[in-house]
Amino acid sequence: MNPETLTLSDFQRHISQRYESVDRQRGTPATWMWFSEEVGELARALARGPRENVEEEFADVLAWLCTLANINDIDLAAAVSRKYLGDAPPEGHK
Amino acid sequence: MNPETLTLSDFQRHISQRYESVDRQRGTPATWMWFSEEVGELARALARGPRENVEEEFADVLAWLCTLANINDIDLAAAVSRKYLGDAPPEGHK
Repeated sequence: MNPETLTLSDFQRHISQRYESVDRQRGTPATWMWFSEEVGELARALARGPRENVEEEFADVLAWLCTLANINDIDLAAAVSRKYLGDAPPEGHK
Repeated sequence: MNPETLTLSDFQRHISQRYESVDRQRGTPATWMWFSEEVGELARALARGPRENVEEEFADVLAWLCTLANINDIDLAAAVSRKYLGDAPPEGHK
C-alpha cells in the first residue's frame, strides 16, 4: 500500500485490531511504561544515533500513542482535527 | 472536513506548513523539551484528569511528534507502514 494514502484512523484501527485486547488488559499505567520506553529510545536515536534507527523509533512512539488512545477511547484523527485543523489553530508554536 | 479521511501524511504536512520554519530554527534538542512537556501533560490528564483534557493532550503529543519528524526529515506514514503494515509486523506486543 501507498503510505501517502494511509489515514490516521485506519492506522489507529489497525493497532486496535492487532493489539488492543492485550493492551486493555495491561491498562493505562502499565502501557504508559511501554510508551515511555519507546519515547526514551527515540530520544536516544535522535541524540546519539544510529541514524537508521530513528525512523523505526518514530514508528514505535506513534504506535504506542495509538495504543494509549485506543484503551482510553480517544479518536486521534478527531482530536487533531478539532485542535489543529479548525478555525483557530494554535499560532506560532503549538 | 471529516477526520476519518485525514491521512497521516496530510496532517504531518499541515504541521510542517504551519510551524516547521520556527521548529527548524529551534532544533531537535529544544523541540524535544516542548514534546516532553506535552507528554507530561498527557500523563497528568490520564492519571488525574480532568478527563476533558485528555483528547487535547493526545492531539498535542501527536502534533509535536510530527514536528520532531519534520525537522528530522522522517515521513511518519512511511515509517509506520514499513514497521506495522508490512509482511512481518511485531507480534503480541510491539
